[in-house]
Amino acid sequence: MRILITGISGFVARHFVELLSGLPDHFIIAGIYNRNMPEFTENEFPNVCCRFHKMDLLNSGQLQELIASFRPAYILHLGSRSSVVYSWKHPAETIRQNTGIFTAIIESLRTLNLNCRLLSVGSAEEYGIVEESALPIVESLSPNPASPYGVSRVMQQNLAELYTKNYGLDIVHTRSFNHIGAYQSSDFVLSSFARQIIRQQQMGRQEIELSVGNIEVTRDFTDVRDVVKAYYLLLQKGKSGEVYNICSNKPVILKDLLRIFEAITGTRIHCVLDPNSFHPSENKQVFGSYAKIRKETGWTPLIPIESTLADLLNYWSAKLLVANCEQ
Amino acid sequence: MRILITGISGFVARHFVELLSGLPDHFIIAGIYNRNMPEFTENEFPNVCCRFHKMDLLNSGQLQELIASFRPAYILHLGSRSSVVYSWKHPAETIRQNTGIFTAIIESLRTLNLNCRLLSVGSAEEYGIVEESALPIVESLSPNPASPYGVSRVMQQNLAELYTKNYGLDIVHTRSFNHIGAYQSSDFVLSSFARQIIRQQQMGRQEIELSVGNIEVTRDFTDVRDVVKAYYLLLQKGKSGEVYNICSNKPVILKDLLRIFEAITGTRIHCVLDPNSFHPSENKQVFGSYAKIRKETGWTPLIPIESTLADLLNYWSAKLLVANCEQ
Repeated sequence: MRILITGISGFVARHFVELLSGLPDHFIIAGIYNRNMPEFTENEFPNVCCRFHKMDLLNSGQLQELIASFRPAYILHLGSRSSVVYSWKHPAETIRQNTGIFTAIIESLRTLNLNCRLLSVGSAEEYGIVEESALPIVESLSPNPASPYGVSRVMQQNLAELYTKNYGLDIVHTRSFNHIGAYQSSDFVLSSFARQIIRQQQMGRQEIELSVGNIEVTRDFTDVRDVVKAYYLLLQKGKSGEVYNICSNKPVILKDLLRIFEAITGTRIHCVLDPNSFHPSENKQVFGSYAKIRKETGWTPLIPIESTLADLLNYWSAKLLVANCEQ
Repeated sequence: MRILITGISGFVARHFVELLSGLPDHFIIAGIYNRNMPEFTENEFPNVCCRFHKMDLLNSGQLQELIASFRPAYILHLGSRSSVVYSWKHPAETIRQNTGIFTAIIESLRTLNLNCRLLSVGSAEEYGIVEESALPIVESLSPNPASPYGVSRVMQQNLAELYTKNYGLDIVHTRSFNHIGAYQSSDFVLSSFARQIIRQQQMGRQEIELSVGNIEVTRDFTDVRDVVKAYYLLLQKGKSGEVYNICSNKPVILKDLLRIFEAITGTRIHCVLDPNSFHPSENKQVFGSYAKIRKETGWTPLIPIESTLADLLNYWSAKLLVANCEQ
């Protein structure tokens, strides 16, 4: 089975390929990266045949050439600007890039007229500001995006629906809630926490000074290994033109996760507010319903948050240890 | 009062400047055009001081320079790809241009931090496919865009709201329904009909062969002279961050307008279906409510459709006569 993955250097792509490597089918992957090298080598997973291609996804001619020659059965589209914080600082660039990349992909598929399914990975940020009475969020809730990043994802979903209905493309769109795990950049909240804790612990501290944003908010976190299973199931069983939440349906207050970090590491955490980490507009509470994807694909999230956080700490432990040795 | 107008070469801009020329205030206009020259000269309306600037609105540096030096109190943003038909043929270009132009404007305003109100002209196409039970359409209806053009306008409205709420910009957004009048391009349905009728009449025919798309659909048409009054009122009295329908609230079936054309011109019209004029997806019936703008600004549409069509025919009569003489 031939799968094209955009954003192969991201942590989600790595976990997706790792998932494929454990399956009985034979997979051939073309992975597109741009600035950063992937987190793994082409030969890291021997059961999967992987080739990396360096390419700016805004270069629609080059992208179309690759799709035409590779002829994927599936495209997993992960290659976007995906930080809400970054989007507040660079709104126009976020809009331009995410929109330009997505139109390059769907225009390639329209032009080539391939029999290919696209998984369009979107975000819970499409919902934007949500009333408490609308929780848990279901897919039929009207989008009300509250960040430049969210606006770019709403555009993506609108285009996905339009191209499915009117140009006959086969696109399934996700609204993925926060997901976490090894290899995630420390630009994201829990990865940032884990990295700070491990770094200080490796310096011999048991009293951790943690730089945080607003930790009173309630969020919905899913282990990235569960998320990539959902992506694989949607590529196979999702309904074209439909939108699926991918989430845990379990609201957790960020603050409470600090207690789990303390318990695992045997540290005490003291929070220091970082004013740069606050967003101009933000929901106090977000969590979603995964009833639709469960009904249509059988997916449910399986990995408890405690295991996820333990694995995340182990990842940073190993990574920072190596970094220290290399110094 | 200093007003920057994007899309000064369009027919709406001409009518807007004509409206200003009849008002007691003193107006200084900077008008931006790109490919086409404006439909009028800088000195056509002596009461208004008008300067034209040739510029690609995607050139954000040049745009920002002009805004910085002109320091407008108001911006009327008309300069977009505005044909639904064109957007079906060139979806990516429509999305890229309309989004790029709008972000260039709002980023300029954000950077310059001017005390300037922007009227963001959007479209009824943002509503997309609408259930009959939702008619007449009110502004609180969720967007469900059904054309690439519609998707680009939803993005524009989302950005307008975002920049108002989070970056403190002063933006009012319209959802303008079909509007018609002299100087409108014959790419648009009623202007196309009027042009065809007059051309054949000037060739001596009383039996008109009219190339049409789907004329069974119901639409909401407003005279462009009423529309530009609404724009002027919204620049002065609209609420920042809000969205306003501009429409007639009077559904008319396209087919019925042919009877009015026949009565005015004394011709008989025979329709020939042009398969190129059908859109992939289309509402059977669209009309809007203007209760919100009436309540907040006092605006109501005043010109009856019969006068509008008569004036439109007169316009084409004069224009084609001149064209014939010039041959």
